[in-house]
Amino acid sequence: MRNIKLTVAYDGSRYNGWQRQKNSPNTIQELMEGVVFDCIKEKVTIISSGRTDAGVHAYGQVINFNINSTLPLNEIQRVINITLPNDIAVKNIEEVGERFHSRYNAKSKIYTYKILNSNVHDPFLRKYSCYCPHELDIEKMKKASKLLIGQHNFNGFSSAKNTKKSTERIIYSIDFERKGELINISFHGNGFLYNMVRIITGTLIEIGLSKISEDAIKTVLKSGERHIVGYTAPPQGLFLVEVKY
Amino acid sequence: MRNIKLTVAYDGSRYNGWQRQKNSPNTIQELMEGVVFDCIKEKVTIISSGRTDAGVHAYGQVINFNINSTLPLNEIQRVINITLPNDIAVKNIEEVGERFHSRYNAKSKIYTYKILNSNVHDPFLRKYSCYCPHELDIEKMKKASKLLIGQHNFNGFSSAKNTKKSTERIIYSIDFERKGELINISFHGNGFLYNMVRIITGTLIEIGLSKISEDAIKTVLKSGERHIVGYTAPPQGLFLVEVKY
Repeated sequence: MRNIKLTVAYDGSRYNGWQRQKNSPNTIQELMEGVVFDCIKEKVTIISSGRTDAGVHAYGQVINFNINSTLPLNEIQRVINITLPNDIAVKNIEEVGERFHSRYNAKSKIYTYKILNSNVHDPFLRKYSCYCPHELDIEKMKKASKLLIGQHNFNGFSSAKNTKKSTERIIYSIDFERKGELINISFHGNGFLYNMVRIITGTLIEIGLSKISEDAIKTVLKSGERHIVGYTAPPQGLFLVEVKY
Repeated sequence: MRNIKLTVAYDGSRYNGWQRQKNSPNTIQELMEGVVFDCIKEKVTIISSGRTDAGVHAYGQVINFNINSTLPLNEIQRVINITLPNDIAVKNIEEVGERFHSRYNAKSKIYTYKILNSNVHDPFLRKYSCYCPHELDIEKMKKASKLLIGQHNFNGFSSAKNTKKSTERIIYSIDFERKGELINISFHGNGFLYNMVRIITGTLIEIGLSKISEDAIKTVLKSGERHIVGYTAPPQGLFLVEVKY
């Protein structure tokens, strides 16, 4: 069998997230498995680098699946792209070794969270950013973000329940970029817990608004208690940018 | 009465264009007149710099209307923005002289048409560009566009029927900008006929694809015959960027 690796971009606005779920239709995984079947008449289970929540977007989600078809790669990409709805696109296709697994082999990921910090909302960014009309103190946010760099138990920055798995993760960098009224915060880490980027972003926003102090971050990293830190920033500001292998 | 001038941005995707029409609901004008009434309890007729078609966007549409209200300008802007759906935003508000008329006083306008020229479509640009998967010869398009600069009878580049008004217009400049796989063509002119920017763009695209030669432009400018030139490029690539007074 051939192991096919795709890099996929999607506008998550109208989907119930990446992962196929019982009793919850309209996931991107389910849709893409259907498209692969329509295109090459093989029933596949698509593995992804990880789920993305309802409303979260991707520039570079990585997925893989096995097929018997001998169709050339560019032809597979072409027919899948023609068949997909236009809010999902296969950006790149590769044939990889049979042992490649898009989740297990992922070494690190980059997520970007976009905040529109402006007096007036923007019709073109309403689905692709979180709108914050109050002035954010970015220097404060940057300073606080440094506390998160490194290896920590991020349990307090996750919505996951009764996790028995390790909640230790490493964040390599958190970078801020200002483009006009848009603030892009990029997170590079070896992995992220459920809702972790959105809870960290919500916490940084509350620090930028001086609603909480950066000490909250220290306390949560020590105690693992979720209630101390900020809200979960909304999904439409979040983009899975890149998965590194 | 006070004459209020607004600069408005809108995502035209889900509207039947700017202008209120009998038997055709869901226009931006109608919606905004309703919002002004909801906010300041005065029935107004909104004048705009000109209509935009269904699906066409605006970064800087300019409109004006008369009110008796003595509310401060920033308060008017605030309540209108809160009441508007989030695909329309008032970017700027000014009080202007009673003789100011956003259509009659417009000196020139800038429109930008966005073309995605790429092998793969882009989920985030599907509503904000025209997708062209075939390689465009931009140098050819630039050269051809120069034939349109200046004062011409643009009748052949318009969809308007039985026009008795002048179809002479001046195009001051047509500028090309490449941003990755996006080609932005900006048109600055003293006014544009119905569908003119979209027909010129469709013609330039067909020239870029070597389907027609630039001579077609010369012929149409002389003869005024619509059928010689290209198709009408789709509305979602078009943005009204600025109106100058």
